[in-house]
Amino acid sequence: MNRVRLGMVGGGEGAFIGAVHRIAARLDDRYELVAGALSSDARRAASSAAAIGLARSYDDYREMARIEAGRSDGVEAVAIVTPNHLHAPIATAFLEAGIHVICDKPLAVSLAEGEALAKLAREKDRVFAVTYTYTGYPLVRHARGMVRRGLLGDIRVVQVEYAQDWLSLPVEAQSNRQAVWRTDPALAGPAGCLGDIGTHAYQLAEYVTGMRPAALSADVTTFVPNRRVDDHVQAMFRYAGGARGMLWASQVAAGEENALRLRVYGTKAGIAFDQQRPNELWFTPIGGASERITRGRVQSPEALHATRVPAGHPEGYLEAFAQVYTDAAACIASGTTQGDDWLTTVEDGVAGLRFVEAVLRSSGGDGEWVALA
Amino acid sequence: MNRVRLGMVGGGEGAFIGAVHRIAARLDDRYELVAGALSSDARRAASSAAAIGLARSYDDYREMARIEAGRSDGVEAVAIVTPNHLHAPIATAFLEAGIHVICDKPLAVSLAEGEALAKLAREKDRVFAVTYTYTGYPLVRHARGMVRRGLLGDIRVVQVEYAQDWLSLPVEAQSNRQAVWRTDPALAGPAGCLGDIGTHAYQLAEYVTGMRPAALSADVTTFVPNRRVDDHVQAMFRYAGGARGMLWASQVAAGEENALRLRVYGTKAGIAFDQQRPNELWFTPIGGASERITRGRVQSPEALHATRVPAGHPEGYLEAFAQVYTDAAACIASGTTQGDDWLTTVEDGVAGLRFVEAVLRSSGGDGEWVALA
Amino acid sequence: MNRVRLGMVGGGEGAFIGAVHRIAARLDDRYELVAGALSSDARRAASSAAAIGLARSYDDYREMARIEAGRSDGVEAVAIVTPNHLHAPIATAFLEAGIHVICDKPLAVSLAEGEALAKLAREKDRVFAVTYTYTGYPLVRHARGMVRRGLLGDIRVVQVEYAQDWLSLPVEAQSNRQAVWRTDPALAGPAGCLGDIGTHAYQLAEYVTGMRPAALSADVTTFVPNRRVDDHVQAMFRYAGGARGMLWASQVAAGEENALRLRVYGTKAGIAFDQQRPNELWFTPIGGASERITRGRVQSPEALHATRVPAGHPEGYLEAFAQVYTDAAACIASGTTQGDDWLTTVEDGVAGLRFVEAVLRSSGGDGEWVALA
Amino acid sequence: MNRVRLGMVGGGEGAFIGAVHRIAARLDDRYELVAGALSSDARRAASSAAAIGLARSYDDYREMARIEAGRSDGVEAVAIVTPNHLHAPIATAFLEAGIHVICDKPLAVSLAEGEALAKLAREKDRVFAVTYTYTGYPLVRHARGMVRRGLLGDIRVVQVEYAQDWLSLPVEAQSNRQAVWRTDPALAGPAGCLGDIGTHAYQLAEYVTGMRPAALSADVTTFVPNRRVDDHVQAMFRYAGGARGMLWASQVAAGEENALRLRVYGTKAGIAFDQQRPNELWFTPIGGASERITRGRVQSPEALHATRVPAGHPEGYLEAFAQVYTDAAACIASGTTQGDDWLTTVEDGVAGLRFVEAVLRSSGGDGEWVALA
Repeated sequence: MNRVRLGMVGGGEGAFIGAVHRIAARLDDRYELVAGALSSDARRAASSAAAIGLARSYDDYREMARIEAGRSDGVEAVAIVTPNHLHAPIATAFLEAGIHVICDKPLAVSLAEGEALAKLAREKDRVFAVTYTYTGYPLVRHARGMVRRGLLGDIRVVQVEYAQDWLSLPVEAQSNRQAVWRTDPALAGPAGCLGDIGTHAYQLAEYVTGMRPAALSADVTTFVPNRRVDDHVQAMFRYAGGARGMLWASQVAAGEENALRLRVYGTKAGIAFDQQRPNELWFTPIGGASERITRGRVQSPEALHATRVPAGHPEGYLEAFAQVYTDAAACIASGTTQGDDWLTTVEDGVAGLRFVEAVLRSSGGDGEWVALA
Repeated sequence: MNRVRLGMVGGGEGAFIGAVHRIAARLDDRYELVAGALSSDARRAASSAAAIGLARSYDDYREMARIEAGRSDGVEAVAIVTPNHLHAPIATAFLEAGIHVICDKPLAVSLAEGEALAKLAREKDRVFAVTYTYTGYPLVRHARGMVRRGLLGDIRVVQVEYAQDWLSLPVEAQSNRQAVWRTDPALAGPAGCLGDIGTHAYQLAEYVTGMRPAALSADVTTFVPNRRVDDHVQAMFRYAGGARGMLWASQVAAGEENALRLRVYGTKAGIAFDQQRPNELWFTPIGGASERITRGRVQSPEALHATRVPAGHPEGYLEAFAQVYTDAAACIASGTTQGDDWLTTVEDGVAGLRFVEAVLRSSGGDGEWVALA
Repeated sequence: MNRVRLGMVGGGEGAFIGAVHRIAARLDDRYELVAGALSSDARRAASSAAAIGLARSYDDYREMARIEAGRSDGVEAVAIVTPNHLHAPIATAFLEAGIHVICDKPLAVSLAEGEALAKLAREKDRVFAVTYTYTGYPLVRHARGMVRRGLLGDIRVVQVEYAQDWLSLPVEAQSNRQAVWRTDPALAGPAGCLGDIGTHAYQLAEYVTGMRPAALSADVTTFVPNRRVDDHVQAMFRYAGGARGMLWASQVAAGEENALRLRVYGTKAGIAFDQQRPNELWFTPIGGASERITRGRVQSPEALHATRVPAGHPEGYLEAFAQVYTDAAACIASGTTQGDDWLTTVEDGVAGLRFVEAVLRSSGGDGEWVALA
Repeated sequence: MNRVRLGMVGGGEGAFIGAVHRIAARLDDRYELVAGALSSDARRAASSAAAIGLARSYDDYREMARIEAGRSDGVEAVAIVTPNHLHAPIATAFLEAGIHVICDKPLAVSLAEGEALAKLAREKDRVFAVTYTYTGYPLVRHARGMVRRGLLGDIRVVQVEYAQDWLSLPVEAQSNRQAVWRTDPALAGPAGCLGDIGTHAYQLAEYVTGMRPAALSADVTTFVPNRRVDDHVQAMFRYAGGARGMLWASQVAAGEENALRLRVYGTKAGIAFDQQRPNELWFTPIGGASERITRGRVQSPEALHATRVPAGHPEGYLEAFAQVYTDAAACIASGTTQGDDWLTTVEDGVAGLRFVEAVLRSSGGDGEWVALA
């Protein structure tokens, strides 16, 4: 098995999405992270690289692109996890160097910038992935397959929303690091909530339905005083064939966590998906009972393509499993051989066996009470 | 950062849990898999090792233990992912060689075997983790913390259940590989459903409540004709302080996927957890409103210890993210530079920017309809 | 206790909403139905009146208004349950006769008609209730109370929707009686889905928030070919204080039953209500855990005002209870003294007592198995 | 239509279940309440009767039975809503008088008493209904129908539970009226939680499955100090054909409201019902997707038999509707002609029409913003 040699720009210590990208690259063991310009600050770039055991560290992405392109063991692909305004120049540098790009969304801070990137990627014949994460869920893919197979009939209505509450208060003024750059037009671009999560909602609707609106009517608002970008977006859609849609995205929807929800209604049936419960997809024919389709049980090729664990083992099961491993690693590293408070050890294994024997004994004794001691 | 050098016994091609263990070990980047006896069949061991790019491959776990123990870069820990009857001999071999053990559950096929392992682990002063996966969920840990902090008061009632339906039919006769060994007493031990999932339920209840039943009364059943082990277990518990409990585990509960559910009721409040929705934990005081505690929002140290992504990003978000990366790797490997049907590419990124600009234009124009082209 | 003497116009045999109005009037025993013009067809009026044991039957509502107004025991109030186009003339006739009016919604087929009714009601000093049913839920009233008490802070965002699928197909062409008049502009007025359910959604949002939009932008659609009124409505709202809102109502939302849902987000917290689960209301402060407020547990005066049964006894408990009574009445009427298949009889009561005694005996015998015979 | 002439014993002012029985009798208009012995205290009997406008009031149920039996317009049936210890003597008196009986559960305080009642009812050939309320739900009846039609296959596992928390604290010592008699063996009989709600759970399981356990093993507990009856019950069941079951009932399950839940698993499929959400029933075939069957959509004869309102109009819709009527009655009675804070009036109707016109105007103007004034 050959792993793709991966580089990363951005994602130094304290960054959120960089660590997520690294886990994502590691999970299926298809990448090997070998180089990075994790920060433009030389010292921070070096210490961040050391912390994750990175082989080659740079503090200038242009130099990184140039040098890596010249090495026989140089990176084949680069992951770009910086604030939005740097996506385009970095992607350009690596495309020019003939390196594939995996870029966080939104692609760029303007349409013109984005179109130039698309053109360059075609010219250079490089893979250019944009991490619209929510398309990676097995049931999102299954939903798309259902639409394609005509199970919904012709689509009439699309309702998509993405609601969060973490910008309900002026947290950027309290130097919440995620909020600061996302509300600074110089770093995030002119669109705030619209670019950050509105684009996710828009893309998800298109990914599943295969339909792009022909026209829209929108109302964009900024609720929090002194905020420099929008924090609430409403729009109505008209599709070519007569379908209608609505989208709203808000980062001031008090109480909502990360509520990306899609509902699609056709001439035969409707579906509903909430990424906060990604293991279930609802399907209801006109006048019929709702079916709760679950990841793992559903056997469509598109769902299986993205499924790692069986039915009822929710996505997240792998993380719980990883936690046990990680706790064990901590005990190993620290010499805590009898386990710490987290780790389930051989003693817990023995307790389970004691339970098994007691159950068999009680059941064999017609339900007599058996002491477990 | 130093990674733990890990070996694996079992988990060759076609095995389920071996691959899960490898993902779990990789996710947090705390392990490096360097050696394995993935099968006792030499040819299969070799091809399985090659498929995952393993450095050193063995077909005899005893030899592996001996040789690895003698190398300066030998494995520090071994993951045991074989059928149950081999857990004890393999673990013994590696403990004797001074190597830490991470073992799947149930620990062994008899209480005596298990107690011997526990004794040996203490003598050899080695970490011996048993992968009770469900203890790795942040909200399971938070639940345990709530009990410890007295938020439930004194515990009166424990209800735990683990229901599946995958053995409702005699699938072992149709050579379902997972079913065959789990229903063969020679490989699985004398307990079927009881050992396979009953022990999980039992352990989860104890992990959260900190209480072990003093006595139990049980009724064990085999529903499927010709099955050689139990497939349904019922038990009632009495705890030392007067608390009561019930446990049922079934692999013939038609319609259930992997329904491990725990409810604990105290003198002040009750909690409920369903591992099929691991991102939420319910807490209700006597006479009060239920609170839906979510992973990511809850800030207890025990939950944060096991949390990787923010609120509303369900466990599983990382897998969706990984899927995008994996799809990109496939395109890179195959030279499908303009993306395949799965991958969201720069063109999708451009579509998002086109949406952003249209929204801003419409909203600026008092909601005028703007074509999206 | 004095009951209000009630008359009814419309609601003859085969009508849906008339029977609902009668149950509603009966439930709390505050009305006595004494007269009606249940149909404009004389024969049908008479047979419908006989079927429900009505004292005085008319076939002309004008005559009914005149005669009843002249009797000392005449109706004090009239319930109007006809198709929309008759609401205004009937209400006018009864108001002119000095009789209170309870009218189904929408009030009338035009704004001018409605305003005239409002003016007349004020002049005649009569109660004029419009049955916006959904305002009668205890938790809708509690939600309104929460807004008033400032628990949400200042309201920023209102999302309301009302989705059904029963008009997804051209059922009016198959002489679905409910569909025929609702899609005939001569009977229903110019608004289809908009008048039928859009008004409910609009009113619910206002009832809870206390806010009426200052302006709206709308897109009204008819999806089903040859339908003469709209079947899908989308609108965006702007409120005076800067708040924003969206409303959609659809009768072609495949799979939806009667999904009237309201979400309100303020500067402190958000709430969510789905009338399909009217016993629960969700409340979430910014960044906090969601609270499931349940009818019966919540002790606000506005909720208690409309609550009949304790917590956990869902609305509907009364109907289940009524069903037992009704089944008993059927047995009594038919002389089926040993009960039919539905009714739970004294034999079922005995079975319960047998269970009680067996449980006490087993528990007294340390869990010995006791035969139930 | 002839209504059954009904009498009532018990249910005077301050009683809970008496009022519920009266609403239940009224809802479908099949009964006319004409006489009662609402209290054994003469003064309270009279004032209670006056409060509900009862024609004939007694303070001695024996006298009532005797006199009513002698009148040509005497009661045909009696509803018994007293504490448990009086059920048997009262039922006996009315049966002896040839009057049908509708009795609250549990039927009596001992099995012997109950068997005598059953015998007497047969001898006297009278209808004797026991109000096991939960059998009245349309979806409980549909569930029974599904079992009968073989949709579950042969039943293997029955799990039933009934959990409340209202007796978690010693509320009987604080003179909670409902608690006082329910925890007094002289009034409630020897079984506390067991008789009060355990019998409901037991009966529901039998009603749906058609199976009665052959044997049980139980453990009964009293958690609250000084309580004189049990407040927690656990039992395991064995059925004749080899099926297994568990039942638990608790009134100290902190956080639970009125959680009567039934799950039944067969050789083909499983079902789940929670009376707290009585409008939905879950059906899942082995290995398949869960179907959410909803009252109103499901068209089985047994469900239709007990259904009053269409799909999506939850049970409870009728109560919301009744609330509007009741609020209108209050306004009529008090002369509050312009409506109070609760009632939706003609002005609200006008607001709806204003909304309709604004929507039509905006949509006609290509979504132009229209002021609502």
